[in-house]
Formats: sequence, structure tokens, C-alpha cells
Amino acid sequence: MAHRSRLGCIVIDCTADKVEPAARFWAAALGGQLEFDEGGKYAEISDQGELKILVQAVDHAPRVHMDIESDDKEAEVARLEALGAKVVARIKRWIVMEAPTGHRFCVVNPQSEVFDRRAKAWG
Amino acid sequence: MAHRSRLGCIVIDCTADKVEPAARFWAAALGGQLEFDEGGKYAEISDQGELKILVQAVDHAPRVHMDIESDDKEAEVARLEALGAKVVARIKRWIVMEAPTGHRFCVVNPQSEVFDRRAKAWG
Repeated sequence: MAHRSRLGCIVIDCTADKVEPAARFWAAALGGQLEFDEGGKYAEISDQGELKILVQAVDHAPRVHMDIESDDKEAEVARLEALGAKVVARIKRWIVMEAPTGHRFCVVNPQSEVFDRRAKAWG
Repeated sequence: MAHRSRLGCIVIDCTADKVEPAARFWAAALGGQLEFDEGGKYAEISDQGELKILVQAVDHAPRVHMDIESDDKEAEVARLEALGAKVVARIKRWIVMEAPTGHRFCVVNPQSEVFDRRAKAWG
């Protein structure tokens, strides 16, 4: 059966213990309101259109990473492995992968409102 | 007079002399066709919705960066400086900035079809 996926989320990884100051900058820069998770590690910036924009507090160097949302994560991981990507780690509900270009990205459950309308079908 | 801006483009910077192999992976991963520039340094991945997705050959480590598109780049740079960002370089038609979080991003001319509909107005 065909599964579906799309680029669903851009995550702005910020080196910090709490995400709040970093998230305030990015929300002001991009124009949106913030919704924080309870642990203070994540914040979503509202009103960004078809792509979800998250700010995350991390303990590594700052970077931006992409999340691919899919209604069948294992089928999507297998598809991406066949293209040359590798699994780096399996964490809770998401899978960290590394592209042949060296970029790390995650495969996650569908998160965006436009998933049904915008996702691509594979296989 | 108010100027406008929005997050318009995600650029996947790949360490390479020519962008083609990297762009082929990302176009297959995200599902789209490629349109290459004449110099072979850039490729756009089609059919990605409201955000433009570019793959770029660079001589630094791989990363993902964001482009903010604006109908008044200098007013936008001044707005972002007031939020704490700094100008790193002015290159041709774009301005490289660094956020207080350490992320580099660019301020560029409007590039997306949805700019008029989706951009935020400032001031």
C-alpha cells in the first residue's frame, strides 16, 4: 500500500538550556506568536503557513534541521535508506537520519494541517 | 511606509563543487523535479508548496539556512538588527545576517508566488 510523506517542519535548534529567549527572537523575526511546550524545550511559531516552524533548545551547536512527516514512518525510512540516507537514532516517536549530503533530519508522524492535501504518495 | 517580509526559502547547503548529486538526493527525498541554474551551483526543487526549497553547492560544512524575503531589504535588515541580529556580509542581491542564536540567514528580494498573500507588514 502506498504511504505518504512531505517536508512538514523546520526546526531551529538553539544552543540553550531553555528555549524562551531564542524563541522570542525567531517569533519576532518571522512574525508569529509562541506556543511553548511544558518542559520549556520547544516552542512553535504560529502563522507560518504550510510549514510548521519549531524552535528547540539543544546541547549541540546551533543549526536548522528538517522534519519529514509521514503516515508510515518505517516505510518512509526504508524509502530514504534506498536513496542513500542512514538511520542515526530512534528516539521516542521520531527517527533521526543522516542524508548522503551529511545533513541530519527526522522522520516524524504527520503534524501539519495540510498533510492530507500536500503529502506525496510513494510506491 | 510599511514594508513586508516572510520566511520565503529554505536553502540546503551541500559541500560540493557541483550541486547535482546532492540535489538529486533531496529532490527524490522530498518529491519534486529539479531546475538547475546555469552555473550548476543551485537547483530548485519544484512542487514544495508555499516555501521555495533550494539546494546549493558550498565550500563550507553542510547546513540548512533560511532566507527571509522582503520588498524592502534595507528596512528589513534594520528591523532585524533592532531585534539583535547582525549583518555579516552584503553579496550581490542579498544580505547575510547572523541571529543572536548563532544561525546565519539571508535577506533576499521577494521570490515566492505567495509573497503578496503571505508576507507580514511591519511599521
